[in-house]
Amino acid sequence: MRIAQIAPPWIPVPPKNYGGTESVIYNLVEELVAQGHDVTLFAPGDARTSARLVSFFPTSLLGKKGDWSMHLKAFYHLQKSFEQVRAHKFDIVHTHLSSSTDLYLFPLSASLTIPHVTTLHSNFPFDLHGPDDKGGDADRYYMDWVSCVPLVAISESARDQEKLPLHFVDVVHNGIDMSQFPPPGKKRDDYLVWLGRFVPEKGPHLAIEVAKRAQVPLVLAGTIARYLKASVAYFHEQIEPHIGNKQIKYIGPVNMKRKVRLLRRARAFLNPIEWEEPFGIVMVEAMALGCPVISFARGAAPEIVMHGKTGFLVQNLDEMIQSLPGIDEIDREETRLYVEHNFSAQVMAEKYTRVYKKVMRNTS
Amino acid sequence: MRIAQIAPPWIPVPPKNYGGTESVIYNLVEELVAQGHDVTLFAPGDARTSARLVSFFPTSLLGKKGDWSMHLKAFYHLQKSFEQVRAHKFDIVHTHLSSSTDLYLFPLSASLTIPHVTTLHSNFPFDLHGPDDKGGDADRYYMDWVSCVPLVAISESARDQEKLPLHFVDVVHNGIDMSQFPPPGKKRDDYLVWLGRFVPEKGPHLAIEVAKRAQVPLVLAGTIARYLKASVAYFHEQIEPHIGNKQIKYIGPVNMKRKVRLLRRARAFLNPIEWEEPFGIVMVEAMALGCPVISFARGAAPEIVMHGKTGFLVQNLDEMIQSLPGIDEIDREETRLYVEHNFSAQVMAEKYTRVYKKVMRNTS
Repeated sequence: MRIAQIAPPWIPVPPKNYGGTESVIYNLVEELVAQGHDVTLFAPGDARTSARLVSFFPTSLLGKKGDWSMHLKAFYHLQKSFEQVRAHKFDIVHTHLSSSTDLYLFPLSASLTIPHVTTLHSNFPFDLHGPDDKGGDADRYYMDWVSCVPLVAISESARDQEKLPLHFVDVVHNGIDMSQFPPPGKKRDDYLVWLGRFVPEKGPHLAIEVAKRAQVPLVLAGTIARYLKASVAYFHEQIEPHIGNKQIKYIGPVNMKRKVRLLRRARAFLNPIEWEEPFGIVMVEAMALGCPVISFARGAAPEIVMHGKTGFLVQNLDEMIQSLPGIDEIDREETRLYVEHNFSAQVMAEKYTRVYKKVMRNTS
Repeated sequence: MRIAQIAPPWIPVPPKNYGGTESVIYNLVEELVAQGHDVTLFAPGDARTSARLVSFFPTSLLGKKGDWSMHLKAFYHLQKSFEQVRAHKFDIVHTHLSSSTDLYLFPLSASLTIPHVTTLHSNFPFDLHGPDDKGGDADRYYMDWVSCVPLVAISESARDQEKLPLHFVDVVHNGIDMSQFPPPGKKRDDYLVWLGRFVPEKGPHLAIEVAKRAQVPLVLAGTIARYLKASVAYFHEQIEPHIGNKQIKYIGPVNMKRKVRLLRRARAFLNPIEWEEPFGIVMVEAMALGCPVISFARGAAPEIVMHGKTGFLVQNLDEMIQSLPGIDEIDREETRLYVEHNFSAQVMAEKYTRVYKKVMRNTS
């Protein structure tokens, strides 16, 4: 299949640090190439890929101070990508939306005669999701085009939450590169892990409460969103006072190597989320390393964690605490195997290939 | 002729205060309608026009704090305008560029099969013009499309300064609404006027030097760009110390009524510009009221001021001072008549009609 993948122009593919969407695109492209497809990736020149790379400028836009010109360059990347797509024979064009900055995608793709599909990597519209986002009220205007474009959701939960009349053709869960996650090892520790961005809706304060009430050690890892006043205040008021003794540790942000070591030796990963998270890749990463996940049964968690087999889905803090003793019964080899069969890049690429065929049938 | 005019979405047509481009668009549209053309104006809903108005949102974008979403809305305005233009039968589409924020114009219009023309209201590219602009390096990228689009310059000077391979089809000077500018009156005063934005390149400090050395009164009027540190410092250091005595007065920003009164009774308007200003509408406004203009012979000034007839073109400060005694010889009625024949909205609309016909011939 001749596949065009158009990445957003903001973060390198794969990302150097943060960048969930770019990580998924990287994994998908590598797997599609490995599965014998003819893939062209449209992305800035700092991408690393086994596909044919087409770039319109050398480096991704984020990292420099965002300003007006960046928007024009973002549009340039998309406009030029679509021009090339129109000029060459592709069977399918796959675009990716993770922030409102790339909403141009929709007017550009709405008029495309080549089969095309867009993965919504975030909830939509963006402007309902807090002060963090840059969407303003623009996405309301863009509904003219958004509603015409075939979309893929990253979970059934994300699709079902959608209030707007969007045209979802399928759900494809995000997949990880299994080779980055070694199988479960023999060395084990007795700590629980919480890992993520320190914002209330991801529940690190609840993880602390679980650890304290159950009197078990907890390691917190991840980043503080220092550009958000509310996040900094949250960390100082609700997290910091509990850190420092032997029971509750905070080890800062972790790179891939440290993340793997941390999760692989952990007793369980706690996911006491307080929102309908559309996916939750860290649950998949933990399970890939054999680490069971105990999550609130919200958002995409019930699609990711197999209750009683790869961890537990619970309704509240009490249930999370009560589930702790049972965690050692979970088969860590089976847990990894479950990820391999359901959330590997290979499986994701196969699912997308089926989506592409479906869209191609619908377009012709 | 069925004419589509696409205005930028940032400032109302006509502008409430500052907005040279929007003022020109307003005058042009009113005149085209008066001359019997079928005109559709694509502009936000706060436009006032005799043409058919098509709006995609109720108010212009500027005035609120500029943010990312504004870009998406700006693009929305342009994209929707072009969609409508494609769907309806227009003989000509006239677009207007005055800031890099609307560079989207070019990829959108490059593929248009209907005859179209864009007026460059500012120098291009924008990023060569100081820290004031928001263009970054994006316009370099947009040259792909800019070079294909038929352009109109607002002066020969603007056209000739252009270093890039742009496709200019003609020059059309800006025109003013003569009905807003009453003919010269009998009441006269002995002061000189400088009027504009207080930035060094517009030369208010030089106007002060002229007045002091020639020992004549000077009235300064206009705005201080308070958002620009350098402009505020310039005003405090080079202008403010000279204000306050009877000879040099600063009367703040002026509305149309005060501007008319100020210029109509003035002895002359001083224009000691230190840059290649692409036009200079205030020279035209002064002359419409019979007020002669003494300008440095730079930028578009030699195209606007008729030396010895409507004022003087001089090379330097000494020449400006030496020219002062001769200013009372200028015929103020003739000066107004000259503007009527060369810089009225009526003449501008007639010139644009000729440009439209030329572009239509070239396109067919």
